[in-house]
Order: sequence, then C-alpha cells, then structure tokens
Amino acid sequence: MPSPVEFYFDFSSPYGYLAAHRIDDIAARHGRTVNWRPILLGAVFKTTGQQPLTAIPLKGAYSKHDLYRSARLHGIPFEIPSRFPLATTGACRVFYHVSDRDPALARQLALAIFQGYFSGDRDISNPDVVADIAVNLGVDRDGLNCALNDPALKDRLRSEVESAMARGVFGSPYVIVDDEAFWGADRLDHVERWLATGGW
Amino acid sequence: MPSPVEFYFDFSSPYGYLAAHRIDDIAARHGRTVNWRPILLGAVFKTTGQQPLTAIPLKGAYSKHDLYRSARLHGIPFEIPSRFPLATTGACRVFYHVSDRDPALARQLALAIFQGYFSGDRDISNPDVVADIAVNLGVDRDGLNCALNDPALKDRLRSEVESAMARGVFGSPYVIVDDEAFWGADRLDHVERWLATGGW
Repeated sequence: MPSPVEFYFDFSSPYGYLAAHRIDDIAARHGRTVNWRPILLGAVFKTTGQQPLTAIPLKGAYSKHDLYRSARLHGIPFEIPSRFPLATTGACRVFYHVSDRDPALARQLALAIFQGYFSGDRDISNPDVVADIAVNLGVDRDGLNCALNDPALKDRLRSEVESAMARGVFGSPYVIVDDEAFWGADRLDHVERWLATGGW
Repeated sequence: MPSPVEFYFDFSSPYGYLAAHRIDDIAARHGRTVNWRPILLGAVFKTTGQQPLTAIPLKGAYSKHDLYRSARLHGIPFEIPSRFPLATTGACRVFYHVSDRDPALARQLALAIFQGYFSGDRDISNPDVVADIAVNLGVDRDGLNCALNDPALKDRLRSEVESAMARGVFGSPYVIVDDEAFWGADRLDHVERWLATGGW
C-alpha cells in the first residue's frame, strides 16, 4: 500500500479551501488516499514573521482577484467571508474528535466547514456553528460536547500543530507525498505529476 | 494586432529566471509577442514590507527546494548564486539602453544576464560584467558606456519602476495579458489558458 498523501491546511485559508476540493480526486487517480490535517497557521506565522496574504499592500488586492479567478476556473463556489481571517481552534478540535473515530466522515466535515465559511459566510470561529455543521452530518452532539471539554482534545490539536511545524509546514495548503513537500494550491499540478512519475 | 504580453521581472528573481525561459513560447503559441520589462523589486518591497523569499524562516528552505525541482521539471539549468540577492540597477540600465534600440536583442541580452547569474554564478551587480555580456552579443561598448553616464538612462529606469508600481506590480515574475495580471512562475498555466480562451 502506498502511503497516504498528507494534506495540511488551515480552515481560514482560502487557497486551502480551493485545494480541498481537488486533493482527493488527484490522489485517487494515482491510487492514494489523503490524510486531512487541519492546523493553526497563526502559530506558524509567529515563527515565520508572515501575515495573512490579503493584509499585504498590493499583494492583498491581487490575491483576492486571483482567488476568485482560480475558483471560477475550477468551478468552485467562493466568496471572501465578511470575517477574515478568523480563529479556527474550535473547528480543528471538532475535526480531530471526528477524525479519530471516522476519518471518512471527518473529510466530509472538513469540506462542510470550509464551504460554510467560504461559500456560506458562516462564522466558523463560533464553536456552536461548527458543532451544528458536525451534528448535521451525523456526529453525536453530547459526545462532541464532552470531547470539547476534555483537555485531551486540546493536546491532540497542539501536538498536530507541533508535528506539522517540525515537518516544516509553513503555509496552507501544504501537501506531502512520500516526504516530498509542495506548498500552495498552485502546486497541485506538481503534486499530480509527482504521484504519476514518482519524482524527477 | 493583439497587444503584447507584458513581462515584468527582477534580474535577481529566480522564479523570474524560470519564467523567462518559458514566456516567449507561451505567448507565441497564441500569436503574441512579449514586452520584457526588468524592474527593481527592492523599491517595491519597501512599499509591501516584504523580503526576499529565501530569507524567510521555513519558507526559505522550501523555496530553494522548489526552485531546483521546478527548474528540473522544465529542463532549465539552475544554481542558487553565491551572491543572492544582489543589486540589478546596472543590469536594468544596460537592458533599457539596448531595448530602446533593438527589442529583440534586448530579450537575448536579458536571457544572457539571467543565465550568467543563475547558471554561471556571475556577479551581475558589477556593471563591467553586464557590459561584457552585452558586448558579447554585439552591443557597442563605447555607446553603452556613454549611455550609462547619461542621466536620461537613469530616468528611463526610474520611470519604468514607477509605472510598474502604479500598475500594481509587486513581485517577479508578474505578467499582464490585456489588463489581466498574473503573479508568479506557477501562474504561467493560467496565463496560457487566458491567452487561449480570452478569460473566464
């Protein structure tokens, strides 16, 4: 069995959102599954001294334009949310709670959270909003509420972020194929070619 | 006649170098010529508060890896120069001196300067090095020396940089097709698609 493709992203990353719509299909075409791994880029940005793309003069205006253009190209519904960026700690915790029990459902959940934010303008920094999205997909509300009050889930997320940083993840999306790293939605063509050829 | 593709770049930009090997072919496949426009990103970075990619923690190491990988993919000789980044004011001035007389020769010169830097490790911040490259392509040394001492050539470059900033150019490479802007060597696939379809 070839190892899964590692897909790191931040729920408030618009390019992460675009990649989320494509990564499973790309991997599947080459007999791979995808390990979805939401992380918190805020912690990473403290190390790299970066700021959100859209906050940078000139680059910000271009990025917005490029996001809409890229979304249209791939037929992905997209709208810059009215609150951007926002905290996604709660969303990540809900994700890992589900992921540890049912990875396939967690992938569905991740897409639903992303869509809620980037095509429904929902406030995914609000734990109740994320819980509603999860419950709507069949997640047990009481079990989820218990988990969200359990320090173990906080530790679970913290260790995911730490291990991502230890692997050099500094942006979203960030894809690792057999130890080969690719940053950015615009590197998915290289990801696909790497999967097809085994590297060059 | 469709308008030329505008190709903005900095001679010390490695992704600019990679794009320089591909942009003419991409444009030619769609019946377009390319207007090569070297600029000074240092001036732009002062506005955007950015720094060279390779200087950023985590991102820097990745970028180097991505550059070698991208160069291999396209069969372009590439080596990170021992002096990086460096000042390219002189190189730009020599380029515009030639460009105003012979745009086709200027394009050859730009590629030769890029190759001297990114596959020959030559110090293109040294005006004598750039002059040698130009003379080697048939540029008259005396005429060039006169021009380099003429304030008009300095003004020429300054106005190119100012007009680039006024158009929103903030990085290298930066390509404009009929007022549609694309930033980055990894957007050349969108450039090509835009040229083919007229937009989406």
